[in-house]
Amino acid sequence: MKISIERATLLRAVSQAQSVVERRNTIPILANVLIEAEGDSVSFRATDLDIEVVDRVTAQVERAGATTVPAVTLHEIVRKLPDGALVALTHDTAKGRLEVSAGRSNFSLATLPREDFPVMTTTEYTCNFAAPAPVLRRLFDKSKFAISTEETRYYLNGVYMHVADGENGRSLRCVATDGHRLARIDADLPDAAEGMPGVIVPRKTVGELRKLLEDDEAQIAVSVSETKIRFATPEITLTSKVIDGTFPDYTRVIPVSNSRKLEVDASEFAKAVDRVATVSSERSRAVKLALDEDRLILSVNAPDSGAAEEELAVAYGDERLEIGFNAKYLLEIASQVDRENAVFLFNSAADPTMMREGSDSSAIYVVMPMRV
Amino acid sequence: MKISIERATLLRAVSQAQSVVERRNTIPILANVLIEAEGDSVSFRATDLDIEVVDRVTAQVERAGATTVPAVTLHEIVRKLPDGALVALTHDTAKGRLEVSAGRSNFSLATLPREDFPVMTTTEYTCNFAAPAPVLRRLFDKSKFAISTEETRYYLNGVYMHVADGENGRSLRCVATDGHRLARIDADLPDAAEGMPGVIVPRKTVGELRKLLEDDEAQIAVSVSETKIRFATPEITLTSKVIDGTFPDYTRVIPVSNSRKLEVDASEFAKAVDRVATVSSERSRAVKLALDEDRLILSVNAPDSGAAEEELAVAYGDERLEIGFNAKYLLEIASQVDRENAVFLFNSAADPTMMREGSDSSAIYVVMPMRV
Repeated sequence: MKISIERATLLRAVSQAQSVVERRNTIPILANVLIEAEGDSVSFRATDLDIEVVDRVTAQVERAGATTVPAVTLHEIVRKLPDGALVALTHDTAKGRLEVSAGRSNFSLATLPREDFPVMTTTEYTCNFAAPAPVLRRLFDKSKFAISTEETRYYLNGVYMHVADGENGRSLRCVATDGHRLARIDADLPDAAEGMPGVIVPRKTVGELRKLLEDDEAQIAVSVSETKIRFATPEITLTSKVIDGTFPDYTRVIPVSNSRKLEVDASEFAKAVDRVATVSSERSRAVKLALDEDRLILSVNAPDSGAAEEELAVAYGDERLEIGFNAKYLLEIASQVDRENAVFLFNSAADPTMMREGSDSSAIYVVMPMRV
Repeated sequence: MKISIERATLLRAVSQAQSVVERRNTIPILANVLIEAEGDSVSFRATDLDIEVVDRVTAQVERAGATTVPAVTLHEIVRKLPDGALVALTHDTAKGRLEVSAGRSNFSLATLPREDFPVMTTTEYTCNFAAPAPVLRRLFDKSKFAISTEETRYYLNGVYMHVADGENGRSLRCVATDGHRLARIDADLPDAAEGMPGVIVPRKTVGELRKLLEDDEAQIAVSVSETKIRFATPEITLTSKVIDGTFPDYTRVIPVSNSRKLEVDASEFAKAVDRVATVSSERSRAVKLALDEDRLILSVNAPDSGAAEEELAVAYGDERLEIGFNAKYLLEIASQVDRENAVFLFNSAADPTMMREGSDSSAIYVVMPMRV
């Protein structure tokens, strides 16, 4: 193998690869990126056995071939090369080394045989559709904060993507929850997505996927089977196993009859919650919301360290209500609101509370109260 | 005590205080900042028993008095208050609380009695002088990287500030070393500093001091005794114990007859060292410098992972030389050079190497070679 490739192109491809590679792993080949050159394109493939990413770039291929080298080291080298450099990658099969050269810099990296690299088996995808990058970005960005980190409830360690009936008809829906809070985000159902099986996309996949969704103009090809999901741009293909479990019936926890409505500027609200939460040493301390005619008083009482109180002008017309929440959950939910006022819908101090942006119910959040 | 103070002023003072406070300490009062209000000024005092910082600011004092509250909590609160806010601090002696209020935010913090706060005893300073902030900044900034972190050699855990004969006459000199590398920085001796006892300024003090030296126009009042050192601006006084130990005779390790001279662009050199060091997994791996007629070849050989080589055009006229160094040490030393080319002076592959900026010998660095 012998190829010439622009530093910026190489950096992007290798950067995606090294991010999938697990830092600590006991199988040496999994630390490597598989480089395959043929025709006028070179592909860079990395995997952690659950996720596989392939980045295909155009390069000048003088001699086709393939080998694997440590992804992190190659990434570090390319990152440190001067901007604009042309990088030559030459596989010396006799020595078992990959020569990396640019200008007056020469590197020689230990390789492992391409045959040892575990390429993910291809699957029959039962559903293929395309979605604009901003649509997928919104679905995952607004739901991922609620993913559980509890390993015992592994079926909550991802975003449940499925087809559902939303307020505006059939929707592509993402739901995440950790039992304390829940996010449910809907988007118009893309053509051909109707038959999609519901899948739980793991947390790491959601993180890696994010990098494919930066370009507002991009169309992402999505393929789904019962066991795998694949997201592809013309350059990058991200394939991931989905979590083998059943996502719980989340619809039961979404309140339908909460009628006490609070309207508040999301940013002012978040800042106030953040301030009053300061006096409690533990971040999970409850913040109390006391609601009265167009008035919200946020307060925290931490007997040993102190107390805090802040008043906000709000729109609220129902009867007096006092309810407590984990400050961290309130902050996370309030930070999802980007355009409009946050609308909270309460029932009682013991029931789940719902939050949405203005009158838009395509993104709703549910949070469990805490006793205060 | 009752005072009104601008948020920005309060933030600066509390920020300096909370940085001195040790995060983990078993004596509750040491987590607190002592606030003392009298006349039209308020002082904020914090200590870790080795360092004490006092920040005196102008404020509207309605009722004089003093109390102590947790420094980190107060800092967090003030940081989160909106810019431009006027903050009222009211000590409720009956409840033992400090009320902090700004706009519609009210906080109440647990206090500890001012009497329990350990104020550092004053010392007879044997030497008092003034030095411009940029002069002290240079002395400490260029030497601190070489401070040892080995606790057993506690006398190397700081910067040795003393009076010495430099190339340009009597000098205020800072030296730091960890046995592998050494920095020796000279400045013109300020008036009245001649009789200063040599003191080892601890690492943490060097860090805290840095914040007093940002203003290019500031004159810093320095007071030194055998056991303490004090740096003061009109607002801030930083007092620190010095390390109770004898700094070793560093002059023995500074080479005087190194004659093989290499001149190289410091930034190009640093980038090349950084690149070739990439192939070694351990950061301490040696980089080999092979010198020949106006040519420097940097190389690293890490048998399991790979090899790297880079050539630089340099000025070198002596005989061939191969010498190895810890890549990290070379990088740190090269990053001290800000204006000119780095000049390295070698003797043999086994002897300490000297480095300076151009022909300026008021800042010199020594680094021990490694066998390669």
